[in-house]
Amino acid sequence: MREFFYPTTVAVIGVSSRETNLGRNIVTNLVDFGFTGIVYAVGPRGGMIQTRRIYKSVGDIPDHIDLAVILTPAKTVPSVLEECGEKGIRWAIIETAGFREYEAEEGRRLEEEMLRIAQKYGIRFVGPNCIGAINMENGFCVPFPIMPKDTKKGDISIITQSGGIGMSVMNLMTNEGLGLNKFVSIGNALDTSAVDLLEYMIEDPGTKLIYMYLESIRNGQNLMEIARKSNKPILAFKSNIGKFGQNIALSHTASLTSDDKVVDAAFHQSGILRVRDDTSLGNYLKILRLPPIKGKNLAIISRSGGHAVIGADACELSNFNLAHFPDSFLREIEKNFRASVIRLTNPLDLGDLFDLDVYAQIVERTLKLPGVDGVIFLHTSLTEEENYTSRKLLERLMKLVEIYDKPVAYYISSTDNEVNYLKQNYDFPIFTQIVETIRALEIQYYHNRQSQLIHTSEDIPQCKVQQKAAQELIDRAKKEKRDLLLSESLSVLEYYGISTVNSIIAMSVEEAQEAASKLGYPVAIKIVAEQISHKSDVGGVQLNLRNKSAVASAFEDMMTGIHTAYPDAKIDGVIVQPMVTGGRELILGGRQDPQFGPVVMLGLGGIFVEIFDESVVRVAPISKREALEMIQDLRGYQILAGARGHKASDIDTLVDFLLRLSQLLRDFPEIKELDVNPLRLFKENQGARALDARIILT
Amino acid sequence: MREFFYPTTVAVIGVSSRETNLGRNIVTNLVDFGFTGIVYAVGPRGGMIQTRRIYKSVGDIPDHIDLAVILTPAKTVPSVLEECGEKGIRWAIIETAGFREYEAEEGRRLEEEMLRIAQKYGIRFVGPNCIGAINMENGFCVPFPIMPKDTKKGDISIITQSGGIGMSVMNLMTNEGLGLNKFVSIGNALDTSAVDLLEYMIEDPGTKLIYMYLESIRNGQNLMEIARKSNKPILAFKSNIGKFGQNIALSHTASLTSDDKVVDAAFHQSGILRVRDDTSLGNYLKILRLPPIKGKNLAIISRSGGHAVIGADACELSNFNLAHFPDSFLREIEKNFRASVIRLTNPLDLGDLFDLDVYAQIVERTLKLPGVDGVIFLHTSLTEEENYTSRKLLERLMKLVEIYDKPVAYYISSTDNEVNYLKQNYDFPIFTQIVETIRALEIQYYHNRQSQLIHTSEDIPQCKVQQKAAQELIDRAKKEKRDLLLSESLSVLEYYGISTVNSIIAMSVEEAQEAASKLGYPVAIKIVAEQISHKSDVGGVQLNLRNKSAVASAFEDMMTGIHTAYPDAKIDGVIVQPMVTGGRELILGGRQDPQFGPVVMLGLGGIFVEIFDESVVRVAPISKREALEMIQDLRGYQILAGARGHKASDIDTLVDFLLRLSQLLRDFPEIKELDVNPLRLFKENQGARALDARIILT
Repeated sequence: MREFFYPTTVAVIGVSSRETNLGRNIVTNLVDFGFTGIVYAVGPRGGMIQTRRIYKSVGDIPDHIDLAVILTPAKTVPSVLEECGEKGIRWAIIETAGFREYEAEEGRRLEEEMLRIAQKYGIRFVGPNCIGAINMENGFCVPFPIMPKDTKKGDISIITQSGGIGMSVMNLMTNEGLGLNKFVSIGNALDTSAVDLLEYMIEDPGTKLIYMYLESIRNGQNLMEIARKSNKPILAFKSNIGKFGQNIALSHTASLTSDDKVVDAAFHQSGILRVRDDTSLGNYLKILRLPPIKGKNLAIISRSGGHAVIGADACELSNFNLAHFPDSFLREIEKNFRASVIRLTNPLDLGDLFDLDVYAQIVERTLKLPGVDGVIFLHTSLTEEENYTSRKLLERLMKLVEIYDKPVAYYISSTDNEVNYLKQNYDFPIFTQIVETIRALEIQYYHNRQSQLIHTSEDIPQCKVQQKAAQELIDRAKKEKRDLLLSESLSVLEYYGISTVNSIIAMSVEEAQEAASKLGYPVAIKIVAEQISHKSDVGGVQLNLRNKSAVASAFEDMMTGIHTAYPDAKIDGVIVQPMVTGGRELILGGRQDPQFGPVVMLGLGGIFVEIFDESVVRVAPISKREALEMIQDLRGYQILAGARGHKASDIDTLVDFLLRLSQLLRDFPEIKELDVNPLRLFKENQGARALDARIILT
Repeated sequence: MREFFYPTTVAVIGVSSRETNLGRNIVTNLVDFGFTGIVYAVGPRGGMIQTRRIYKSVGDIPDHIDLAVILTPAKTVPSVLEECGEKGIRWAIIETAGFREYEAEEGRRLEEEMLRIAQKYGIRFVGPNCIGAINMENGFCVPFPIMPKDTKKGDISIITQSGGIGMSVMNLMTNEGLGLNKFVSIGNALDTSAVDLLEYMIEDPGTKLIYMYLESIRNGQNLMEIARKSNKPILAFKSNIGKFGQNIALSHTASLTSDDKVVDAAFHQSGILRVRDDTSLGNYLKILRLPPIKGKNLAIISRSGGHAVIGADACELSNFNLAHFPDSFLREIEKNFRASVIRLTNPLDLGDLFDLDVYAQIVERTLKLPGVDGVIFLHTSLTEEENYTSRKLLERLMKLVEIYDKPVAYYISSTDNEVNYLKQNYDFPIFTQIVETIRALEIQYYHNRQSQLIHTSEDIPQCKVQQKAAQELIDRAKKEKRDLLLSESLSVLEYYGISTVNSIIAMSVEEAQEAASKLGYPVAIKIVAEQISHKSDVGGVQLNLRNKSAVASAFEDMMTGIHTAYPDAKIDGVIVQPMVTGGRELILGGRQDPQFGPVVMLGLGGIFVEIFDESVVRVAPISKREALEMIQDLRGYQILAGARGHKASDIDTLVDFLLRLSQLLRDFPEIKELDVNPLRLFKENQGARALDARIILT
């Protein structure tokens, strides 16, 4: 991949002397960015630009060429590629648009031809339908729009599926004073994918932080595997999340859609920070440059009481604590700065005092406290004179951050001019919104913690299961051309060590009574009928039946209720189960995701899932820690953990079941969907039981 | 109140010739802002500043004084105020700090003295502990910090509880090119409150939009009443929402805290737009200047496909639809701009084309479509040449907005310099973040709709109730010095027309069986015991008992379960009720809020409330529309409305019960808290029943 960014001889193909020719811009960009290699221009009409010959064909160039940048009409690209191959060129960037994103059939045909030719000559290429690449280290800058010359060299690299968004991000970086290292727009990613380029950037010594903009994800498992190996922060903006977006993305870069929750899980599990808008992008790019915050205890030092109040609110929203200031510290502050500090507490309100030296001393003393993990400094500077001293203060704060290796998140309310000056002249994050400042620090905390917790293959346990027995059941269903497993589903679960409840199907009152006495009273009976979706709404679930006559009267009530609500429903009998009381109703599940493979799901049971769409998803395989985290991420976890006077639930068993489910889904790619609904989770040490389950095969 | 902003003669008290004297700054601000009245300086040491005499006392001034600005040490303020009174001054702004926000006891004593003196002379004052006021119409500018001279005159007025935040907001406005009309910092609001000033701003002809920053709310009912009358948008940032904030606010402007959900409800019900951070503040200030969007159908026109995808995602998140473009429109676009527009759909991706005239024509044609309520224009301009044509385009868009009276939300990705130029030179909202652009439009939509739906007193129905009978029950409890009503609570509800379920208390198996046959099988029995908080966890709720022996075995199981879990629990018997099946479990409630008076609450019942904290709150009294909106705001409303194959619930009855509850809480201020838990809501036309209730008296 290095060859895409460090060529020594480049041919730009598609150049003409016309004023509006876009190929010209590419040559101009290379010249303006001070490219350290040799550039040749190629175009069928020949002629010249800027005292430079335009060769009619790449074959005419009297030199070896490392890389070709191609921007000729779509239908000519295959033959141009062929010429490149013959010339011995092995790397190309194809910027031309008008392939499958424009005309599905003809575009795809052209793309296949390009792939065939590339394979024949061993050419690797980026694109088509992209705006090219930039390397700030050697001035290699080949996008077809004229690029802004104030682009700063730095250590952030960009991989983008949309050229337009890539340019907006570069612009945002310029405005924030952040420097670029490499940029690549992947377009249709026909040969070289985002993941290939990510793999390169992770190794690239000039890159310290990677930003990706993706509208679709093709090989999710691969992306996760590569990202897991990265020691560099990876930010990713994955758009095209909804039904509107799908429409345009198909027409834009021929994207496929993927389930957004799975994307969230996959990014989380592989340590990729998901960005959702420009605000957070700017915040994250800045905050990741500060030393990592090691705990959740902050000190707020503020020049105004109002800013302090808003800062304290924001800390609470971002789950930070306000550090406790020890008495000795407060006495020291009091002694040195009496009458200057309005009130000795955290947040510390500095009042009217504006003394650079005092501010810096207070920040230093605060950073020294072992109970303080980071400082939020809320500053206001609205006049010329204050701006001058503020800059000196900022320099002091930058040094303190280095010395104490703790982050100081610096917010300032000032004129746009002054804020821009600070951003352009100080290599330090400048925030202008209090709530965003603290939200950014929260993300930094999350990122530091999460990147230490990424699982490796050793973290994936092998549970003892009866895979063969399960395979036999599934094979039988396949042979019988059934794709739905019902009562067999519970057996499959049992083979994988997920406990279930005994069930007997009964077709009459008498059979139900017989089943009940076999299972032992009290029992529950539930209707079996495909057309009835909300059983309990129509009396289709009868619980707590304590004797023979109760079973009879409940059976009767059930049939009356159902016949009233669904006069035409075909009834396949009732399930009789021993009454299971206590515990919590959960739902477990899983499915094959087209992008990421098997995923595991956990939710609160019953109507919760339906109303709230509250479920936690992870890509399989999961580690023990990830299984536990799934449970902790559940809204309502506090109840399971035993808060508010509830008994704690058997979390260990639930963790075990999730691991077994993950293994089951990995062992059987032919399981398209799986529902365990409900799973009843009992108190600590009392296990859990699946009451019902469904498996759908592909 | 007008006198606070339009004095003709002003005495600034607390001026000295010392360089660091803050009173000097006030005089400087008045001079620099071109105050159209006369200014006198007063300070005990006399002397002069800037060729102006400093009078030793206000009494020495040989002129009538309309208003005094006081900035002398706290303990001197009462005597200064006395002198002002003797001089015949009737209006004062007291900026001095160091009262109850600093030293509770001594501060309060001083404040009481100030109030006494003010009353004696008929003085109205703003403050203390504030930074004063500004009126851009006459150059009256009296904050003690030097104010930035680039403050622009406009139509936005600010009322702020924190001077520092007020200045930050002014700075934000300057950076966004937005003009100020009036500014007032209320500090401890001892005499003149935020509500008093709000009332004035609503009438003030120069003010078109009002921004308030509040850390506490003192008379919420009054605030709501005033806000309801406003035809001008009111934005309010209410901070100090959490337990951290409370700490500093007490020490800052002596704030009281209020329940944040109630604040949300109160603002919503009175048409105040709640602001939660600087980002939304900037957005709202800008978006409210566009013509109101009348529906939810947007067109996105974008220069880049990637921006279009992000825009489409954002529309979905903000609940906008992408308007359907009619075929005739698309054919027209196709005919005129073929090969320029990448794909004829909404979002419209303009591709590489950059032709000002075409852009404007497409926007115009789009605005003409009756099915389009507003346009999102996503623009990129990164070079000098593009900037020039972009400005011309913006001018065209501004005209189109005027002609078609529909909003065009304009996003641009450009250099900071260019963005600042646009903000300072065009009176049009400039957005630089796609997601925020659309979020702002969503708020504008909400605001326009909500401001038409504010209830008036005629919208509050009077339900027929037996108030006297309820009063008797409550009086009896008061007489017996009980503050908890148990079974009487259900009677109170019945008197107010809220249906309940028959219940019989039983102390033994035999009594329970007798009660069951009186009520009719099947029955439910529930334990009555104060110490047991989660009855169903320990078998304390037995449902669906279908005969005498089932009651006996359930009773036995219940006692065994409870004695195991709570060996020492004192059991007060069991409640026997007819088995109520079907329907949804809800919780209704209410309480007296110290800021806003009685509030009504609705939530999903059972464990929902506990786990999810999902409840909807409104300040009483509520209109029928507000009651319905409460239900619609409930997560899970779709289920109640009959979605996903569920039967629709009896929404009409629930609306009726909410109105009756609102009336009950208004009729009895002595009801501190009220819980109806659960309320079972049945299918359409089948009503609802309260199964249990508790009333706590003050």
